Amino acid sequence: MRTVAEHRAAVLGLVRPLGSERVRVGAALGRVLAEDVVAVVDLPGFDNSAMDGYAVRAADLAGASESTPVVLPVDGDVAAGDTTRHVLAPGHALRIMTGAPLPDGCDAVVAVEVTDAGAEKVSVRLAPEVGRHVRHRGEDVRAGSVVLTAGARVGPGHVALAAASNVAELVVTRRPRVTVVSTGDELVPVGGVLEHGQIVDSNHLMLRALVEAAGAEVAAGVHLRDDADAVRAFLAAPDGDPDLVITSGGVSMGVYDTVKEVLSEDGGVEFVKVAMRPGMPQGCGVVGATGLPVVTLPGNPVSSYVSFHVFVLPALRRMAGLDPDDDGAFEAVAGASWPTATGRAEMTRVVEDGGVVRPSGGQGSHVLGALAEATALAVAPPEVDGISPGDALRCLPLLGHHRGCG
Amino acid sequence: MRTVAEHRAAVLGLVRPLGSERVRVGAALGRVLAEDVVAVVDLPGFDNSAMDGYAVRAADLAGASESTPVVLPVDGDVAAGDTTRHVLAPGHALRIMTGAPLPDGCDAVVAVEVTDAGAEKVSVRLAPEVGRHVRHRGEDVRAGSVVLTAGARVGPGHVALAAASNVAELVVTRRPRVTVVSTGDELVPVGGVLEHGQIVDSNHLMLRALVEAAGAEVAAGVHLRDDADAVRAFLAAPDGDPDLVITSGGVSMGVYDTVKEVLSEDGGVEFVKVAMRPGMPQGCGVVGATGLPVVTLPGNPVSSYVSFHVFVLPALRRMAGLDPDDDGAFEAVAGASWPTATGRAEMTRVVEDGGVVRPSGGQGSHVLGALAEATALAVAPPEVDGISPGDALRCLPLLGHHRGCG
Repeated sequence: MRTVAEHRAAVLGLVRPLGSERVRVGAALGRVLAEDVVAVVDLPGFDNSAMDGYAVRAADLAGASESTPVVLPVDGDVAAGDTTRHVLAPGHALRIMTGAPLPDGCDAVVAVEVTDAGAEKVSVRLAPEVGRHVRHRGEDVRAGSVVLTAGARVGPGHVALAAASNVAELVVTRRPRVTVVSTGDELVPVGGVLEHGQIVDSNHLMLRALVEAAGAEVAAGVHLRDDADAVRAFLAAPDGDPDLVITSGGVSMGVYDTVKEVLSEDGGVEFVKVAMRPGMPQGCGVVGATGLPVVTLPGNPVSSYVSFHVFVLPALRRMAGLDPDDDGAFEAVAGASWPTATGRAEMTRVVEDGGVVRPSGGQGSHVLGALAEATALAVAPPEVDGISPGDALRCLPLLGHHRGCG
Repeated sequence: MRTVAEHRAAVLGLVRPLGSERVRVGAALGRVLAEDVVAVVDLPGFDNSAMDGYAVRAADLAGASESTPVVLPVDGDVAAGDTTRHVLAPGHALRIMTGAPLPDGCDAVVAVEVTDAGAEKVSVRLAPEVGRHVRHRGEDVRAGSVVLTAGARVGPGHVALAAASNVAELVVTRRPRVTVVSTGDELVPVGGVLEHGQIVDSNHLMLRALVEAAGAEVAAGVHLRDDADAVRAFLAAPDGDPDLVITSGGVSMGVYDTVKEVLSEDGGVEFVKVAMRPGMPQGCGVVGATGLPVVTLPGNPVSSYVSFHVFVLPALRRMAGLDPDDDGAFEAVAGASWPTATGRAEMTRVVEDGGVVRPSGGQGSHVLGALAEATALAVAPPEVDGISPGDALRCLPLLGHHRGCG
């Protein structure tokens, strides 16, 4: 049997970073920067006023105070967006708005609150120091300097900074395109009538949701019957032009495990047992002339869900230009006792609260009822046969509680 | 001056929950459930096999062991998806696959691994107990029971559980539709040529990104010049049929603060000073015959960014049917010292790491350079004049590090 780490390495070995693309800064939210972002302009782009008030020369107001205000003639207004280059005459003031460019000759701004707010002449009750309420060109960012670094995930603050630096397009990593394949004659679409022996194809929708929650793209979603020709036809021309195919079902010990049967013919995909519970039957490899990576997940919904986080998510991160090991794992303390399998890494669905984790309910590989509320997988190593309250556990955040690859 | 809490309450008082809509379960990722989800079918839907192996009567294998295997005739196969109701004859076996329905008369399954895997007859080396490897109908979920509760955010596990329960549509809260308005003659679109005195309209893109990161919808994005007629025309017929309008700029003490001027005419919007830094000039109210809520944010980018988190995000949460107070606030310890304003709540942009927060760089209201990397706002109360290492601080997560309203 393979260890979890060995199979994870095998899956990671199938994929590589996908390269980059340019997107408008307004469409870059959530993407990963593939290149540093370099400011096109200084920030601020020109000396400007930090306040609504009056542009002055500090020397003209020496000695001004509450009891001895100084009166200056007001020569006009400078509004934000005024593109005229104003000049401040000695001994005069100009009314100026927040963000408006400083007139030549001005070296300070007095706020309207310390004046009588006059329009023709203004009485000022404060002697400002040189530079008072002045924002200097380039004091925040210099044109040509790196404002955002490759590898960062673009949040609203990144959008603001790039845009303010007048960078209209960002170079971001390409999002992995994943075709999701569910297999099995027993599967019917949600909302239909279930005959005896049939179940809803919930894995299909779950895997699509996992791909989306990871920040990757669903290239296509396909359901295949347990029919070797149908599987072969799909593999000859996978729907959606994907970067990766993930399948669920058909990889166990059964005589109708068609995915395993057909993918074994080609030789590019290996099927293995992984020392993990749930999720023992796994497979991965490449198919076709292009060497398209394929990861085959077990059909049990919980096994499939766990396997996606443990094996597929690191691959998506690598494809998106991120460090696959940067998986958000954290250490927590067990708040209950539960048995775990020896000889296999037990992946227990837990709810984390304040650094303490507890199993979220039934843990069988078909038990979906408790899956939704889980926030993490607690990993019990193979040599352990049970967890006791107070044990330290490594935990992997589940998607929805983890940012994924995009 | 208003306290932060008073203005937050004023903004919250303008909005109410928006109601709900039905979406396909496959399109519900990230949405908030407006109603409980009730299972349509039992899970499992029928007694079925947990393993690939042989369906048997436990009594027929009494005494079977490694040294004394018992041989049973195999009457055929039951595959997953087989809708025939098979009957197991006493003293016989049927080959059965994982997930396949249990034949009538069968009370246990033996795994293929403890047999010789025969097709005509099978030699079994284990005496199973009754119920071995059998999943019983309804043991995970009973039809008619609540599987997901109103108020939950739909993650991949919720999709899986709802779909498996054969629920094709979910009732989710409607996402708030927000029209974003930036104002100011000094603003030009990103990527253009900047004349002296002009700056990029980065607030527009930032506020759009904030709305999207919060899980709400950008109904429309508008730039208005400092022209009262343009502002009046917009207010008469706001673009995008929004549930909420947010503006940035034009609300300070300047003579060209057109938003304030025009919105003050109607009387539905009040402009106030809030005891907060950055972000003192604020406004909120309703406009037009429909009572459309409007929140006016300051034009300084950092002030606008902070104000969005403190005042707009709680409103979006209420509109989306969530508890506005469930803001993800956490307590952290200061890892540095920094001065704070007395008489105002200081919202310092900090980076949180392992429960310790440090300012992310320059903190002026126009300083974007340090904004992108911040993960939280550390709140220093008005009565405090500085933060020392080791001080406990309430922190609000910033979007990108917080799930918002959808």
